[in-house]
Amino acid sequence: MSSEPSLAGVGPFGGTSLAEVGARLRNREISAEELTEQALASAHLHNPSLNCFVTIDDEGALRAARQADRELEAGLDRGPLHGMPVGVKDMIATSGLRTTMGSRHFSDHVPVIDADVVTSLRQSGAVVLGKTQTHEFAYGPTSDRAATGPARNPHDTQRMTGGSSGGSGAAVAAGIVPVALGTDTGGSARVPAALCGTVGMRPTQGALPSRGAFPLSPTMDVVGPLAGSVADLAASWWALSAGSDLAGARLPRWKEWAARPPVEVAAVRIASVDSALTQRAGQRSRAAAGLALNALGQSGAASRVVGLPEIDQSARLYGLIQSGEAYAIHAQRVSEHPELFEPEVLERLTAASEVSGWEYVRALEERLKLRASVLERLTTTDILVMPTVPIEAPLVDQRELSGEGEWSGVREALLSMTLPWSLLGFPALSVPVPSTDSHLPDSVQLIAKPGQERLLMDVAAALESQLRAG
Amino acid sequence: MSSEPSLAGVGPFGGTSLAEVGARLRNREISAEELTEQALASAHLHNPSLNCFVTIDDEGALRAARQADRELEAGLDRGPLHGMPVGVKDMIATSGLRTTMGSRHFSDHVPVIDADVVTSLRQSGAVVLGKTQTHEFAYGPTSDRAATGPARNPHDTQRMTGGSSGGSGAAVAAGIVPVALGTDTGGSARVPAALCGTVGMRPTQGALPSRGAFPLSPTMDVVGPLAGSVADLAASWWALSAGSDLAGARLPRWKEWAARPPVEVAAVRIASVDSALTQRAGQRSRAAAGLALNALGQSGAASRVVGLPEIDQSARLYGLIQSGEAYAIHAQRVSEHPELFEPEVLERLTAASEVSGWEYVRALEERLKLRASVLERLTTTDILVMPTVPIEAPLVDQRELSGEGEWSGVREALLSMTLPWSLLGFPALSVPVPSTDSHLPDSVQLIAKPGQERLLMDVAAALESQLRAG
Repeated sequence: MSSEPSLAGVGPFGGTSLAEVGARLRNREISAEELTEQALASAHLHNPSLNCFVTIDDEGALRAARQADRELEAGLDRGPLHGMPVGVKDMIATSGLRTTMGSRHFSDHVPVIDADVVTSLRQSGAVVLGKTQTHEFAYGPTSDRAATGPARNPHDTQRMTGGSSGGSGAAVAAGIVPVALGTDTGGSARVPAALCGTVGMRPTQGALPSRGAFPLSPTMDVVGPLAGSVADLAASWWALSAGSDLAGARLPRWKEWAARPPVEVAAVRIASVDSALTQRAGQRSRAAAGLALNALGQSGAASRVVGLPEIDQSARLYGLIQSGEAYAIHAQRVSEHPELFEPEVLERLTAASEVSGWEYVRALEERLKLRASVLERLTTTDILVMPTVPIEAPLVDQRELSGEGEWSGVREALLSMTLPWSLLGFPALSVPVPSTDSHLPDSVQLIAKPGQERLLMDVAAALESQLRAG
Repeated sequence: MSSEPSLAGVGPFGGTSLAEVGARLRNREISAEELTEQALASAHLHNPSLNCFVTIDDEGALRAARQADRELEAGLDRGPLHGMPVGVKDMIATSGLRTTMGSRHFSDHVPVIDADVVTSLRQSGAVVLGKTQTHEFAYGPTSDRAATGPARNPHDTQRMTGGSSGGSGAAVAAGIVPVALGTDTGGSARVPAALCGTVGMRPTQGALPSRGAFPLSPTMDVVGPLAGSVADLAASWWALSAGSDLAGARLPRWKEWAARPPVEVAAVRIASVDSALTQRAGQRSRAAAGLALNALGQSGAASRVVGLPEIDQSARLYGLIQSGEAYAIHAQRVSEHPELFEPEVLERLTAASEVSGWEYVRALEERLKLRASVLERLTTTDILVMPTVPIEAPLVDQRELSGEGEWSGVREALLSMTLPWSLLGFPALSVPVPSTDSHLPDSVQLIAKPGQERLLMDVAAALESQLRAG
């Protein structure tokens, strides 16, 4: 199959890191304003190909960058995101900056508040470069149904980014920004991370504040960052999770946080997941997970296999719960202005309206039991390893799949491996794995128990480092 | 209309109190065994007329009574329920004693455990006399749809008891037992209390353990006691709410609890409820509430009127939530053995299955808002006063109503005044009010804010005392 030239890493943050750029910033080799100008230029240059931004905020970004420069000049250092351009998914409110939810329903919507997570980023000195594309209302893992059209994969612009945080995945993978916010209900941060070759994390359910993030399925919605490396993801996680304590947060506090030595991987109990579900993953996906397990083994981790038949039921429960909750959010819009929805999204909402109250109630009960059962099986396991996605990035607009896995279609396949951890509320992240036989990225998903984001990132960092060394 | 002779107060506990009987027990004027024999004889004598017991446990009750006698002999006094016969609604599990849920589905069901609330009663020395009739699966406020037939009102056996704890209402009103457990989802403890002329309380949502009580709508289900007087209700509340601390509970601990002086009614801020809903109550019901307000005024309480338009929406939200939850519990039974249900219960379940997931989700959200709004209106109010029921006890099997209130039927009317407090999770109780122009009881409902059962009972005791004096 022919492919477009790759746009991966073409932007100012391609092949570098927050730490490297931060050092240049603090050495005065470059200013935040210059960095932002480079990022803006890259965004304008590549957006026609990638469609990763819905809105590029030249004026606001430059204003924030100049403020960051003045602060550094005055000795005020807000930490690793200080002066760094970031993308914010267009499901997340930004004060004074249009926020469309990827939908014609909100084409002209300008929030009067920042979402709490945006406040956290700004308190950490980040510069909001613009709003990244999202599948309409985040209701789909393909990012090719949105008022402003499909996002495109930097590795091959004929391919989809995955979604729903497709714009964030593409903007980070292209190196336009080092970090972008996504949201993750069934896999909306991890799936585009996997397909675009970035790191992407779903935090523990409830770990980050949800105010200002437009809901899809509130019992499973979380905000999650995407970044070019695990270290950059960790820096953004610090900025997001320091939360309201951040009022007084400055470089010394970041240094204190970052100074904690990482967990020794040899002391971490790692297991690969075995279930009918994981056996449906394609050959490439399973090979990537195997490569990751080997690399972790080389880092000193012994791993075993944990059977988790429970997660085979996840998709059914996820569908019932998400349907009831999503239609509750959109019922009025469906009844008053159905014509403003993307037809596929409207069709899915209509189907969602048909889930019964009692099925929803039962699914909530079953979820609790499933969670208890999985936690029980993980008594002596800290980190699980399995594919993030079972297939490589499909073409934009592709819906059918043939062959391996017998998926009903692209949507089912893309969410299949991520949604169990959404349903159960566990933190999980996707890390790129070197791809040897394709121009498209490979990836692996690591999963931890609730509250263990730091452990998850430590293990991911060890894996990333081993993979780069290998 | 002709009426049957009244069976109110005909049993050994008619016209007396736990305190009086307890004094005779401790003076050795009577033994627990003799008391239980009297109660058993009365139960057997009147059950053909009242149908208030599904199962009378002669053997188990006498065994427990003799144990209570031995303990008293040995100086072990478990407090006000020691040696006292009690009824337990047949929705609540009793170890080794058949528990039918009022349904042919459970005709031969013998639990292997006691419900936690039954454990609490036994730890307080109570003697379980038998299992009281319930509307099938507690799914109806009329107690005339059950595998063993309708419960009948002791004041007029042509009349219904109200429900679903109809057997408990009738057994207490007849004086067969001083106290009986009910459950209350929409009004199942308060409605039969009102129609039968007893006291009945719905505690705060979650205040008592639910293990072993068969569910109807878990976010609104509570266990609630019925008793012949507020003092007897308070004693049973102590026994139930002392919970697991009760392992070491003995008479001194009860005395300590009971020694706390009651709240001064003059210091309590009382309000009558005004809303479109309460205006639909019939003349007699409104007169009874007015009488109660006057009596409280004579006890020193100033009262005002609080407008609560919010509660007019309660029935709709209650219906959506209860439907989704109830069908989730019964779906499998409906599909496998529909023929075992009472036809009316099956019909209601079938209707309940049609509530959508999104409507259920929305109703949960609206409930939270309604609750916040009502709590806000009650900032300077401690106790609300309104009717428990808007009509007098209908005939057994009656479904239609004419005239006042324009209710769709008996079921809607009976639950209309109690279900708002179920929906919101507030504690509420029903107290009898003297009826001057009828052989049927009148009543009033008092409502407190969450956690304020003690205040609620103090005000109810003052009211009861004033009404008896007046």
